[in-house]
Amino acid sequence: MLTIVGIGPGKAEGMTMEAYECLSRCECIVGYTVYVDLVRQLFPDKVYYSTPMTQEVERCQWAIEQAASGREVAMVCSGDSGVYGMAGLVCELAGEETGVEVLPGVTAACSGAALLGAPLAHDFAVISLSDRLTPWDKIEKRLQAAAAGDFVICLYNPASKGRPDYLRKACDILCETGVEEERICGVVQNIGREGESSRIMTLATLRDYAADMFTTVYIGNRMTKQLGERMITPRGYRQVNGEV
Amino acid sequence: MLTIVGIGPGKAEGMTMEAYECLSRCECIVGYTVYVDLVRQLFPDKVYYSTPMTQEVERCQWAIEQAASGREVAMVCSGDSGVYGMAGLVCELAGEETGVEVLPGVTAACSGAALLGAPLAHDFAVISLSDRLTPWDKIEKRLQAAAAGDFVICLYNPASKGRPDYLRKACDILCETGVEEERICGVVQNIGREGESSRIMTLATLRDYAADMFTTVYIGNRMTKQLGERMITPRGYRQVNGEV
Repeated sequence: MLTIVGIGPGKAEGMTMEAYECLSRCECIVGYTVYVDLVRQLFPDKVYYSTPMTQEVERCQWAIEQAASGREVAMVCSGDSGVYGMAGLVCELAGEETGVEVLPGVTAACSGAALLGAPLAHDFAVISLSDRLTPWDKIEKRLQAAAAGDFVICLYNPASKGRPDYLRKACDILCETGVEEERICGVVQNIGREGESSRIMTLATLRDYAADMFTTVYIGNRMTKQLGERMITPRGYRQVNGEV
Repeated sequence: MLTIVGIGPGKAEGMTMEAYECLSRCECIVGYTVYVDLVRQLFPDKVYYSTPMTQEVERCQWAIEQAASGREVAMVCSGDSGVYGMAGLVCELAGEETGVEVLPGVTAACSGAALLGAPLAHDFAVISLSDRLTPWDKIEKRLQAAAAGDFVICLYNPASKGRPDYLRKACDILCETGVEEERICGVVQNIGREGESSRIMTLATLRDYAADMFTTVYIGNRMTKQLGERMITPRGYRQVNGEV
């Protein structure tokens, strides 16, 4: 049996109870080095197998083979197992084979939003700025579409060493599509880990923000506002109740 | 202290460990009747306060007042606390007051996706079809924008008794925006509860599907495919590794 497990933002308390139980029960734990190291502290007595970021296929094949040989295998993913996680690749490689289960987890869009207040209380779009697996022109088109639809936008992978300026490029595209420079935005870093922080700023400030690969970014919709230290996208309840 | 707690899809195992601990610890639990009833089975010895769906403001005000009087109060939301949840309204009503914490949970987009396979492995948009709080023309515009951007689309609140034909209307809008009738779609019902089910179908079939308020709907992007009993949106790892 192979279970793809979303472990949430990183700390044990952010895992679902079924994710925790699955990891307690399994024999082997497989994953990207960074996530395996998070889990190893909680469950030291397991067989571990990790590979760096470019070796996803090898990692999945190893997990599928181990499970086929009768072992209980868990593949860990940060956040949710499906959102930019390994569930897709494992399902593709497993084909029509059964014996693969997917356990969801709290994705960074939600765990980061909780730190900021409630930026995702209305329709939203999730976009990864990594062009390792997606052509940049497709990313650009999605940014334009999300801005045109007045979605709250949550950006994953806003920057890395090889592409330090992608967040700036994305902000420029949003501005060109009509998002004003004063639009309320938010960033969170190291969610559920050491160094956790959040900050609210305008789109103009976000453009020059030094994001890294552990940053999640939120661009509000037209209604999003800052109230004290919180970023809030109203859903309209107060209007419905005649208060505003 | 007031904590807004996302309880995940419904079963105890789907809660995060910190959500479970927060509910164990608090004195009062507040929420929409349906969610409070789910939680009451797990924690019978609490003070409960629930209101039906149109009385969100009263519910939040009661929770804020109770917390201000020194009680430990948890407000429960199905799925995540922020995604169409109560975190937004509570933060608005609380203004710049401190003493409000938001705990995220597994939103239906992720828990439903896990049942289908991996439909959300690439950029996606989440749209609620409920026009109780959002004008229909805004919903229509967002459907068009999401289709134009080739996002995977996840629909919340696809139907209710008062609006049985909204899913059909949404499918028609997507078709008019260029989504082909053969596009791979998926539906899940009663995630994490009795009667849990999932089904994969084309957009043409989805158009006539009898969704209810416990249904979550997925419309794939151009790359989404059905493999056996699973709905998968490839992210491109296999292409990167030169296999396809």
